[in-house]
Amino acid sequence: MTWTPKNPDFARIVLESFSKQQAMSTIGAILSRVEAGHVEIELPYHESLTQQHGFLHAGIVTAVLDSSCGYAAFSLMPAGAGVLSIEFKVNLLAPAKGDLLVAEGRVLRVGRTITVCQADGLMRTKDGETRVATMLATMMTVTERPEVTG
Amino acid sequence: MTWTPKNPDFARIVLESFSKQQAMSTIGAILSRVEAGHVEIELPYHESLTQQHGFLHAGIVTAVLDSSCGYAAFSLMPAGAGVLSIEFKVNLLAPAKGDLLVAEGRVLRVGRTITVCQADGLMRTKDGETRVATMLATMMTVTERPEVTG
Amino acid sequence: MTWTPKNPDFARIVLESFSKQQAMSTIGAILSRVEAGHVEIELPYHESLTQQHGFLHAGIVTAVLDSSCGYAAFSLMPAGAGVLSIEFKVNLLAPAKGDLLVAEGRVLRVGRTITVCQADGLMRTKDGETRVATMLATMMTVTERPEVTG
Amino acid sequence: MTWTPKNPDFARIVLESFSKQQAMSTIGAILSRVEAGHVEIELPYHESLTQQHGFLHAGIVTAVLDSSCGYAAFSLMPAGAGVLSIEFKVNLLAPAKGDLLVAEGRVLRVGRTITVCQADGLMRTKDGETRVATMLATMMTVTERPEVTG
Repeated sequence: MTWTPKNPDFARIVLESFSKQQAMSTIGAILSRVEAGHVEIELPYHESLTQQHGFLHAGIVTAVLDSSCGYAAFSLMPAGAGVLSIEFKVNLLAPAKGDLLVAEGRVLRVGRTITVCQADGLMRTKDGETRVATMLATMMTVTERPEVTG
Repeated sequence: MTWTPKNPDFARIVLESFSKQQAMSTIGAILSRVEAGHVEIELPYHESLTQQHGFLHAGIVTAVLDSSCGYAAFSLMPAGAGVLSIEFKVNLLAPAKGDLLVAEGRVLRVGRTITVCQADGLMRTKDGETRVATMLATMMTVTERPEVTG
Repeated sequence: MTWTPKNPDFARIVLESFSKQQAMSTIGAILSRVEAGHVEIELPYHESLTQQHGFLHAGIVTAVLDSSCGYAAFSLMPAGAGVLSIEFKVNLLAPAKGDLLVAEGRVLRVGRTITVCQADGLMRTKDGETRVATMLATMMTVTERPEVTG
Repeated sequence: MTWTPKNPDFARIVLESFSKQQAMSTIGAILSRVEAGHVEIELPYHESLTQQHGFLHAGIVTAVLDSSCGYAAFSLMPAGAGVLSIEFKVNLLAPAKGDLLVAEGRVLRVGRTITVCQADGLMRTKDGETRVATMLATMMTVTERPEVTG
C-alpha cells in the first residue's frame, strides 16, 4: 500500500520523536527505516532483555512493535500533530530467540483521528528469518492536549 | 475470585521463575505479591523507560502487565509445568506518569491448556492512584517442549 | 464505578438507538437494563444462532457484547453525539450453552473522543450462571460525520 | 503462504462443519472458497443485519470473520480434530455498507494446539471493494472433549 504523507518533513520528525523515546535507547533499539506509512525498528538480542527461557521478553518485543506502529502512523500525520497508542493486541508466534529482532510497522487505514496499524516482529539469525510476533494496533492523532497516551 | 493451587509450592516457583526474567531486573521491576491466581509486580518510574512525552513507554507497561498475567496463570499450574504467553491486548487509559506502576494480574478462567488473565496497571503518586492500562491475556500451560513463547 | 451522564435523557436515547439495530431484533436480543455507563442486553438461546457444536456462535455472542459496550459508552456521551465501535477483543471462556445470554457492558474510562469498555457474557441456566465470554472494547464519540463504524 | 493439509479430505470436512453452523445460514452466509489454510465466506448485505446507521452490525461482520478464521485453521488440522475459537480481536476500518461482505480467513501460524489466523472483511459494491474490518484470532485444536468454545 502506498501512502501520501501530509507532512513532507515526516522522516525528520519521526527520527526526532524516536530519539526522545528513552525506552528505545535503553533496550538498544534503533530506527532502521522510515517511509510514509512504514517504519522499521531493529533490536539486537541481548540477555538483559529476556524472559525465563532466555528468549526476548514478550513485553520487549511489544515495545518495539508498538513504536514501529506508532511511528508508521505518525509519518502520515499533519505537521504539529502528536501520536498516542490507544490499544494494541499481540500474538506471539514463536520463541524470540536469534540475533536481531526487526519490527516492521505498517499503516492499514488512516482517518482524521484514528489510524490502524499492523506490525510483524521478525527474528533474524544467520540461517534466516522467523516471524515471532504480530501486532494489530490503534493509534490516535493528537492535535491539542493528549487525552490518552502510550 | 478464589483459586485452589495445584502446586502447594507455587509461591516459591513463581519467585524462582520471575528471578530468571532478566528483562524485569533490567527495567527495575520487582515481584511484590504472589497469591494463587493473583500476582503483583511493581515498577518505579524512571526516565530511562519513557516514550517521547516522558511517560512510561506502553511497551514497558505491557511488559510488567504480561509478567503479572503470566505468573498469575503459572501460580495455578501443576508442578513441572511451564507458562507461555499466547497473546494479549492492552488498552492504554491514561498517561503513565507518576512514581510507581503497580501491575495486578488475575486469573479469569483456568483450563487444561489455556488460562485467561486480566491485569490492571495502576500508577501511584503521593496524591493517589490512576488506572493507566488494562490487559486481557491468554496464557498456555506447557508440559513438554514449548510450541509458542512470550 | 459511578458515572455522571452528560445527557439526562440518556436512557431514552439509548433505547431509541438500540431499537434501530435491526441485527439485535433479528437475533432476538432485548435491552434489559440501561444505567449511566452500564448497559445489559439479553439474548435467549436459540438453535438458529449456533455453531457446529450447538453452542451460541462466538460472533453472535460478540454482537450482543459489542452492543452492550457501545450503548454503555453512548449513555455517557453528550446529546447529539453518535457512537461507533473502533475495535474489540473477545476471549471465549466456556461453551455458550444455556437458556439465556446476558451481556453486561460497563465503561472503564471516558475521554473526549475515546471510551474504553468491558463486557462480560453470562450464560444462565436454571442451575446458575457461567461467564462464557469477556470483551475489552474501544468506542468513539462521533460529533460530525462518521469516519469509522461498527 | 502455502500450507500442506494433514487431512486430504479437508475441504469436505470444512463444508460439513460449516453446514452445521446454523448461525451462518440464519444470517445468509455461504462458504465460497476452501483451500488449505485459506477460507472465504460471503454474506450478502441485508437490512435485517444492520446497526443503527444501516451498516452491517460489527458483531455480524465478526461472526463471518470468526468462521473464516476457524475454518482456515480447521482445514489444516488432522482428521478427527475439532476447532474452537479461543479469542479474537477485530478492528473496524470503514462502514460496512455495500452489496456483499467477503471474509477472507488465512492461517498465519500452526502449532500442535494453537493456530493463529488473520482475516479481512471486504465490502463489495458495483464500484469496487473496501476493507471494512480486520481480525487477528487464536484457534485451538481439540482432540478430546472441548475445554473452551466459540
